[in-house]
Amino acid sequence: MAARRDWDASRALSYARAGRKKFVSELAAFLRFPSVSSQPERAGDLRKCAHWLADHLRRTGFPSVRVIRTKGQPIVYASWQRVPDRPTLIIYGHYDVLPGEPLGAWNTPPFTPTLIGNVLHARGAADDKGQLFAHVKAIESFLKTSRALPVNLICIFEGEEEIGSPNLPDFVKRNRRRLKATAAVISDTRMISPEQPAISYAQRGGLRAEVEVLGPAQELHSGAFGGAVHNPALALCEMVAGLHDEEGRVAIPGFYDDVRAWSEKERNSMEESGPSNQAILDAAKVEQGWGELGFSLYERTTIRPDLSVNGIVGGHTGKGVNGIIPARALAKISFRLVPDQDPQKVAELFRNHISRVTPATVRSNVRTFSPVQPALINRNHPAMQAARVAYKGAFAEPAVFIRSGGSIPVVHTFQNLLGIPAVLMGFGLPSDNIHGPNENFRLPIFYKAIETSIRYLALASQLPQAPRRRSERNGLHDR
Amino acid sequence: MAARRDWDASRALSYARAGRKKFVSELAAFLRFPSVSSQPERAGDLRKCAHWLADHLRRTGFPSVRVIRTKGQPIVYASWQRVPDRPTLIIYGHYDVLPGEPLGAWNTPPFTPTLIGNVLHARGAADDKGQLFAHVKAIESFLKTSRALPVNLICIFEGEEEIGSPNLPDFVKRNRRRLKATAAVISDTRMISPEQPAISYAQRGGLRAEVEVLGPAQELHSGAFGGAVHNPALALCEMVAGLHDEEGRVAIPGFYDDVRAWSEKERNSMEESGPSNQAILDAAKVEQGWGELGFSLYERTTIRPDLSVNGIVGGHTGKGVNGIIPARALAKISFRLVPDQDPQKVAELFRNHISRVTPATVRSNVRTFSPVQPALINRNHPAMQAARVAYKGAFAEPAVFIRSGGSIPVVHTFQNLLGIPAVLMGFGLPSDNIHGPNENFRLPIFYKAIETSIRYLALASQLPQAPRRRSERNGLHDR
Repeated sequence: MAARRDWDASRALSYARAGRKKFVSELAAFLRFPSVSSQPERAGDLRKCAHWLADHLRRTGFPSVRVIRTKGQPIVYASWQRVPDRPTLIIYGHYDVLPGEPLGAWNTPPFTPTLIGNVLHARGAADDKGQLFAHVKAIESFLKTSRALPVNLICIFEGEEEIGSPNLPDFVKRNRRRLKATAAVISDTRMISPEQPAISYAQRGGLRAEVEVLGPAQELHSGAFGGAVHNPALALCEMVAGLHDEEGRVAIPGFYDDVRAWSEKERNSMEESGPSNQAILDAAKVEQGWGELGFSLYERTTIRPDLSVNGIVGGHTGKGVNGIIPARALAKISFRLVPDQDPQKVAELFRNHISRVTPATVRSNVRTFSPVQPALINRNHPAMQAARVAYKGAFAEPAVFIRSGGSIPVVHTFQNLLGIPAVLMGFGLPSDNIHGPNENFRLPIFYKAIETSIRYLALASQLPQAPRRRSERNGLHDR
Repeated sequence: MAARRDWDASRALSYARAGRKKFVSELAAFLRFPSVSSQPERAGDLRKCAHWLADHLRRTGFPSVRVIRTKGQPIVYASWQRVPDRPTLIIYGHYDVLPGEPLGAWNTPPFTPTLIGNVLHARGAADDKGQLFAHVKAIESFLKTSRALPVNLICIFEGEEEIGSPNLPDFVKRNRRRLKATAAVISDTRMISPEQPAISYAQRGGLRAEVEVLGPAQELHSGAFGGAVHNPALALCEMVAGLHDEEGRVAIPGFYDDVRAWSEKERNSMEESGPSNQAILDAAKVEQGWGELGFSLYERTTIRPDLSVNGIVGGHTGKGVNGIIPARALAKISFRLVPDQDPQKVAELFRNHISRVTPATVRSNVRTFSPVQPALINRNHPAMQAARVAYKGAFAEPAVFIRSGGSIPVVHTFQNLLGIPAVLMGFGLPSDNIHGPNENFRLPIFYKAIETSIRYLALASQLPQAPRRRSERNGLHDR
């Protein structure tokens, strides 16, 4: 901890405050790319978006920026490593976004960033371009004012997070040495409210599945055959309805076998720090909760697993009336998994269950994909504690540690492959509508996120330099 | 029954045999119109189709042909009434068809009639353009050879059968006097096999419904909210799954209250004359039957009511993966009803049931439409018996009397408004795929249908002239 300061946080903060207007127009340019990773026809847009981001990082002052090819979408890699005696941080984000569909539900076009009051509306505004960009602007604020950063930095901005980061683990594995760091910072989660920042220390795992039910080889006339031939849409409804029991539990045998039971102490601390039932209902804009008896809504969305029907389709769904028995019906399902569930094991349980409950009168197929391990991060790690404090400067409140319901595959990747914690410095808000229409990001939060990042980079200069491999290698053992 | 014959059936039969090739190419022209009544954008095609048919009837020799406007699609009306001392028959058919969608499931384009071997493939080939056209060609065969018909004829070809004939009752009511007849002939049903003709003496009634389940105002992230917010697609599945009980019965309270129980004698006679379970499975191309315990498949599709899911849709159903909780989900449902169920009463029972079983965690809407009364026709009516015999000349076997599972709204209209039986002289086959992709009509059946119609018109000259109002007014009392 030398007294020599080649960087100056207060000058960086001033630069950031003065640059807000420019930052917003740059973010808008970033948001204009329809970088939808789940739509193959958008590959060109993803590539263009990656190159735009790389150019932007170069202009920001990064000496080394590369657009790295993968089997899928490219990774934008930037590094500044000029203070070998100081710790190294990885900053991770993703420039890919979910589809804009259904377009009709948006008040403004998803890829035409639109400012309404001080809220910026666009697909990706919060998830994750806006949050990623806050760090980029914090870095710029240092580099433009001090020509130096408080810590060594490696930025990894990938383009496949929304499809489960299929190529990131391989990239991290191949570059394990180069990626030696103290911690990884990821801003892709939520605060509790605009006034109460939060750091997620737990994410649910995940698994996607498609269940297809096949009935007659062709659609049949429901007058001629209705009552005598099992309807695959009906059979699918029956099978899907059977996936939960009367108490809101997932009714797949063995599904809860590996679900960790938490102590009263942990559950009490969750109740204190986490959002109330009402806060979750308000965020969802629904009047009543639903789910597993015996758990709060916060618990149901964090320490309890979930099975959601993401979509269902079968038979005649268009205009007009068609008196048919469909030939097939399909349900898209996503699991959210918790410690110590294993997505591969859940996939097998699900496949067996569906095959067991498929009536003899129809056939079924199950496809499972995008397995993600649940993750836990040690709240006591100095990089986590430093983040807690960094928020205070910008938001007046230190961050609380909370659990998240979503799945961030990369957390597990960093923990397992690099042995470092992922510091989930979230700047999202419940009202951001990420994954829905009218996604948005509030500019006051964007500005505070930049300030938080500036403060964190400054604080991080005092972190230990070496990875704390032993205690971090398997984050799942944080009880 | 004067000995004077101004018509000659054998010359008509010879003309029909010689004209087959011409008839098929004319039918193909008729099938080329995408006269889809359930798609508002097809209104122009329906009008063109109606005018083509009217022109064709004029060329056939009808002295009076009109295209009559309704509130919906026009009715093609043609009459030949030059033998006041002889009975009058109404011939009813419909020139509208179901949608061609899903187009991908067709081996040939639905509105490009394609002959594969001696099977003509097109939407409407069997339902109902092909069957309607058989009568037109029988009439032509008389008019071109004898310049006279054995009976007075009124043709009513409507364009709204597939959407429940909303404007036909009004037309019949307004023209009740002009439509005085002995019987109505309708060819829009099936034979048992190419060798065994059949006349339907019972049709199920019907009712369509849409059930919409509404959850959160917008799609939600299933990571953030999965487990805490009821998923409308899941809720819909749960509600639809609850529509049948363990024994395959429709689980709407009161649904069976008015379902008529049939005598052992009637059920035995159905077993003798009707298709076997295996024949129905073969026609559906499925291996196992399904439905209400204690009834044969033929019974399940004729004397027992049915609730079919015609389509279901909700949430993300397109390409890619979208981890969401949908905002809404929709099921399209059709009921098939039997004596003495009343569609309006069933609509009310269904609405009440859905409202009762909708969980407090979501909202639901129910729309019901297209009510059709179930119908029964007196098998002993001379017009029915004559039809039975007419088949023998063409098919070598007399027709058997069977029940149908489908709904033909016009049967009820003719019975109730005109007091005459509908003689359902079906020429369809189980393999015709009506209402499905690859609808087709076998040319040998088409030729025999023309011959059957010629023979029937000849036999009909001996029917009583006056409507038998008393015994026919309410066909539902045929036990």
